[in-house]
Amino acid sequence: MTKRFQIVGIGNALVDVLAHCDDAFMEANSIQKGVMQLIEMNEGIDLYSRIGPAREVSGGSVANSIAGIAQLGGRTAFVGKVKDDQLGAIFSHDLRAQGAVYETSLAPSDHPAETGRCIVLVTPDGERSMNTYLGVTEFLAPSDIDEQMMADSEWIFLEGYRFDGLESQEAFAKAISACRGAGGKVAISLSDPFCIERHRAAFGEMLKDHVDLVLANWIEIQSMYGRGGDLDSALAAAAAEVETVVCTDGGNGVHVVAGSQRWHVPAVPTKVVDVTGAGDLFAGAFLWGLAEGFGPETCARMGNIAASEVISHIGARPEVDLRHLFAESGLI
Amino acid sequence: MTKRFQIVGIGNALVDVLAHCDDAFMEANSIQKGVMQLIEMNEGIDLYSRIGPAREVSGGSVANSIAGIAQLGGRTAFVGKVKDDQLGAIFSHDLRAQGAVYETSLAPSDHPAETGRCIVLVTPDGERSMNTYLGVTEFLAPSDIDEQMMADSEWIFLEGYRFDGLESQEAFAKAISACRGAGGKVAISLSDPFCIERHRAAFGEMLKDHVDLVLANWIEIQSMYGRGGDLDSALAAAAAEVETVVCTDGGNGVHVVAGSQRWHVPAVPTKVVDVTGAGDLFAGAFLWGLAEGFGPETCARMGNIAASEVISHIGARPEVDLRHLFAESGLI
Repeated sequence: MTKRFQIVGIGNALVDVLAHCDDAFMEANSIQKGVMQLIEMNEGIDLYSRIGPAREVSGGSVANSIAGIAQLGGRTAFVGKVKDDQLGAIFSHDLRAQGAVYETSLAPSDHPAETGRCIVLVTPDGERSMNTYLGVTEFLAPSDIDEQMMADSEWIFLEGYRFDGLESQEAFAKAISACRGAGGKVAISLSDPFCIERHRAAFGEMLKDHVDLVLANWIEIQSMYGRGGDLDSALAAAAAEVETVVCTDGGNGVHVVAGSQRWHVPAVPTKVVDVTGAGDLFAGAFLWGLAEGFGPETCARMGNIAASEVISHIGARPEVDLRHLFAESGLI
Repeated sequence: MTKRFQIVGIGNALVDVLAHCDDAFMEANSIQKGVMQLIEMNEGIDLYSRIGPAREVSGGSVANSIAGIAQLGGRTAFVGKVKDDQLGAIFSHDLRAQGAVYETSLAPSDHPAETGRCIVLVTPDGERSMNTYLGVTEFLAPSDIDEQMMADSEWIFLEGYRFDGLESQEAFAKAISACRGAGGKVAISLSDPFCIERHRAAFGEMLKDHVDLVLANWIEIQSMYGRGGDLDSALAAAAAEVETVVCTDGGNGVHVVAGSQRWHVPAVPTKVVDVTGAGDLFAGAFLWGLAEGFGPETCARMGNIAASEVISHIGARPEVDLRHLFAESGLI
């Protein structure tokens, strides 16, 4: 029987505040390139007051993946918490307008925190730093998980960042149990190296016992499975625990390991404008491909095309029809 | 004695909600291309629910001009009303971050209206429709006008759209009196043909008695001064009343008439992505040039370059250094 959803994502619901800056600004404000750091509301206000004019676009790592899946025509939903405020309305609108189901209950307007946002600073080389005020998205709890929805999805896709919060980890456990109990599978994004540092034990346990597919970049795979060795050893260690391991390596392409099989799929060359969302869109396209029944190599090619699209402009969600790009490349 | 400001703008404080749509969507929703229509909060919510994923960027016609002047290094300020809410914070941030002074008191958080916004729908031909919920920006009143600021500016620049509101017309009168009383000059944008229809008498009186420079496109000039004749007659009629008449004509360039002198300056050819803000940035660059002491022809060339920059991307504010573009063209 066909399930209602192909992929349900669970993660941070954030609005991105995108601004350009130069390397001197990054240094003066002690901001590190390429990573996500958590900031308090006051730090966020302070940083916001120092950056230049910005634009606001809906974001969130797994939410970006789900937006991509929806744009591809996949049957998809997202679970993540915003507040009943203006930024919350923007987030909800954009996800639904893209075609995803989004029904998570709003934090009430008298909640002391606001809808989360991420100040994304893009340097001239296209790299970005993410400075995240989580706000109400931090409060995702088991009560936000609709077990029926999880049971009615072929895959659930969990965002590593949401391990930042014990209640959210419990929400993941509830979702996993409902999904797997109904024959569904579990994918997870390791999100970033610092996130792994914060939650190594919890990640390790989940990967070993409850995850069918892991998406990560090579630094994250090395951090989680490398133990000082090379990437090949780390990939082998990962594949010993997880059925499918998908490891991105920026311009060097993607490694996929599934049991004894292994593929390397080169990246799609693109002029880099802003790498924000590249990994997210890769993940979305890869998972959509799997759900549609394509093999891992084709899925990786789809992921690379999706990533190259999102890299070519400012903002973390696709701006052209990804199906059209896949068709142009003869993939669908 | 040098005045503190070169140009102070007074107009609508809005956040733009930018989305793409096709011509069929425009037709199905009875939305007319190229113009601004006012909508109620509920209509705005309804339209927002039907459009695709969007991005949010600070806007407002004269506010865009002021952002351009600030980016050029001009001494400039803006007067326009937002609320103490998240969209209001975005508007305030972007204008100040660009270098403009912005001190208008916020409408309190218990005000029944919200910060105004404009749903801008961009069709594949680069044309746009503007669907504006004015919100608290409609309540700009004489009490928002700091007479000292007006007296301390070489120019004030009034937004025709803000004639929508009797209190705002009184605010304009107060600003004009303070500015002219201290030897300053008054510029006005006629904003759009429907705005002229709504306020023909008030516009006519103001142009005749209190305006030194009018900025308008050819349709607006014809509507205000044409009386069924050709553009040349309309320009002559305008020039009989107003010291400097600046008339844009899209891809056909710009006419400037000052007394017995007249110039035609061709447009800068550009791939059109989104025309939103083209007139606003033209106005900003033109006024900045005047305040810097350049002649009308050079100012028009600066305006055309600024307009071509903003046409080449989504969003109504400049994304590259306009001074750099002027320098490349040998204007500064």
